[in-house]
Amino acid sequence: MTPSTLSSEHEALLERFKDGRVLGLARAISVVENERAGFQELLHTVMASGPQAKRVGFTGPPGAGKSSLVAAVATEYRRLEEHLGVVAVDPTSPYSGGALLGDRIRMNDISMDPGIFIRSMATRGSLGGLAATTKEVVDLMDAFGFDRVLVETVGVGQTELEVTAAADTVVVVLVPESGDAIQAMKAGLMEIADIFVVNKADRPGAPRLVKELRQALHLRTGSALKDIPAHHGVDLGQVMKKERSTSPSAEKPEGWSVPVLTTNALTNDGVETLLETIQEHRSWLEQGGELERRRRARAEIRIRDVVNREMRRIAWSSADARALLARGVDDIADGEGTPYSAAEAILGALLR
Amino acid sequence: MTPSTLSSEHEALLERFKDGRVLGLARAISVVENERAGFQELLHTVMASGPQAKRVGFTGPPGAGKSSLVAAVATEYRRLEEHLGVVAVDPTSPYSGGALLGDRIRMNDISMDPGIFIRSMATRGSLGGLAATTKEVVDLMDAFGFDRVLVETVGVGQTELEVTAAADTVVVVLVPESGDAIQAMKAGLMEIADIFVVNKADRPGAPRLVKELRQALHLRTGSALKDIPAHHGVDLGQVMKKERSTSPSAEKPEGWSVPVLTTNALTNDGVETLLETIQEHRSWLEQGGELERRRRARAEIRIRDVVNREMRRIAWSSADARALLARGVDDIADGEGTPYSAAEAILGALLR
Repeated sequence: MTPSTLSSEHEALLERFKDGRVLGLARAISVVENERAGFQELLHTVMASGPQAKRVGFTGPPGAGKSSLVAAVATEYRRLEEHLGVVAVDPTSPYSGGALLGDRIRMNDISMDPGIFIRSMATRGSLGGLAATTKEVVDLMDAFGFDRVLVETVGVGQTELEVTAAADTVVVVLVPESGDAIQAMKAGLMEIADIFVVNKADRPGAPRLVKELRQALHLRTGSALKDIPAHHGVDLGQVMKKERSTSPSAEKPEGWSVPVLTTNALTNDGVETLLETIQEHRSWLEQGGELERRRRARAEIRIRDVVNREMRRIAWSSADARALLARGVDDIADGEGTPYSAAEAILGALLR
Repeated sequence: MTPSTLSSEHEALLERFKDGRVLGLARAISVVENERAGFQELLHTVMASGPQAKRVGFTGPPGAGKSSLVAAVATEYRRLEEHLGVVAVDPTSPYSGGALLGDRIRMNDISMDPGIFIRSMATRGSLGGLAATTKEVVDLMDAFGFDRVLVETVGVGQTELEVTAAADTVVVVLVPESGDAIQAMKAGLMEIADIFVVNKADRPGAPRLVKELRQALHLRTGSALKDIPAHHGVDLGQVMKKERSTSPSAEKPEGWSVPVLTTNALTNDGVETLLETIQEHRSWLEQGGELERRRRARAEIRIRDVVNREMRRIAWSSADARALLARGVDDIADGEGTPYSAAEAILGALLR
């Protein structure tokens, strides 16, 4: 990885990218997604000017109607003449190695609009790699010059975390069917939500979910971020806390009270209010240094991701390591070793 | 990591463990879960004799009734006087840092039985770390001498993969509400299932789901494992294929036709048939070298996991790396660097 050099092919690509040509963006994403030679140099070059776009993440369980809501929100931002990038991560298809059209059908209405660029990603690759690549595609969209980047992730458990490491504002989308507030608390959604949205709000159970969420949020006020766990070998909570105390604007901003909104993405009910609330959150982020704190925390995670990925690449491209790996597998099959003895041999060779 | 040495504290723990005392197992799990000093040496020591237990994984989306089914299956195995370990992974709680009692309530009926040991794990830790630790706890249960270890994982997308890297037989549990067969295909469940179970089979939609799954499986016959993706920087599909071709018993066993069963965990309907089918799959695994192939693939993944984790630990315990990380974050905040330039500096220091 030598950020200073760029191939002539990537120079040409970069020229298109900087000219704001969508083909340049699409190619850059493809280079990054496939980790083609020089992808890190390319990212280094385009990211030199730092984050500019407003990043809004949408996450929640499958079936919550996130795609529809993101489509409705995107339509509204387009009406306001913002240029938009959309990254939709679909971890329900770790196997296909490609994007799934089906789930994006509702995006079709807006996908012919040249002011919006939508990228649907399946989550192939390693667990760690997924995270790194997703964040890199968001960074590309940011660097391309979109006013705003919407990031949609679906999932239970781990994948929600991704969105906190890619977005400034996190919208958690729930429906009555996705469970009660207790389950949302258990799933850690209280910790990551800047805004709760109860979608499909016309369904029975919606008012109760709204009420429960408000009660649960009230109980938790002040404890946000306390329990965010280690992540990619990084304790996100620790990173956040550290950045909070060492940030130049060390004054903690007035707390943000997480609102619980209702929407119906299909009828557009509540979408305008959601946009206003996202804007209010943005103002709050920019006022008290919170945005800078979040960006610093993200930077730390991104650096660690890149180092960890590069270490894995270096290690497993070593012929010694691969030979010792094969021998380790044989030894274990023969009852003459364990993963730990094999790993020790490999680490010994790598660190020699 | 020096597998040859063991602290006197761990020597004492190990003695209890080898005596088959549950307290020894519980302490060993705690040492491993918290990655306490010497945990790898401990694992190396207990794993020296290789895998012995029959490992059965249960996975599927939230709400499929996996806990109830695992409880019913465990009860049945206890009736057959098998000694059982149960590892229940709950990634819906990445934040809590502890096990959740609520979801395990249905396990209570059997949890007072001394012939069974149940461990519920929240999935704290890094994405990579989760996987490694979960597999290590399963290995501990195996080494403890249980006849069988049941591994329950909930999740969408990534977490199902975990179970293939920990279990010999994978049971995928669905309910009509969890979607149709197309969604199951998209979610990659066709590739990992050795046995499909449609649980809550008394509900409307169950017969249709059974029929759809059978049709989808019929279409896919022979393509199993083809599309399993890279995982933890390991291409599991490649590992599987390679082991298939280089395994001493290179004859591919007669194909296993993935059956679609129905159960009702609450009334126990279909549970006996499920046990018989698991036994049939076991026989098939043992006949044609498939068990050895899976164990070899698992060994490779485990070795890579341990090496990757150890590399991360070594890297981030370096004072140089941490100082450069902090400087990298400052540089990025000041617009004077990117994650790639920071990572290059850190890697330069680490590899010097």
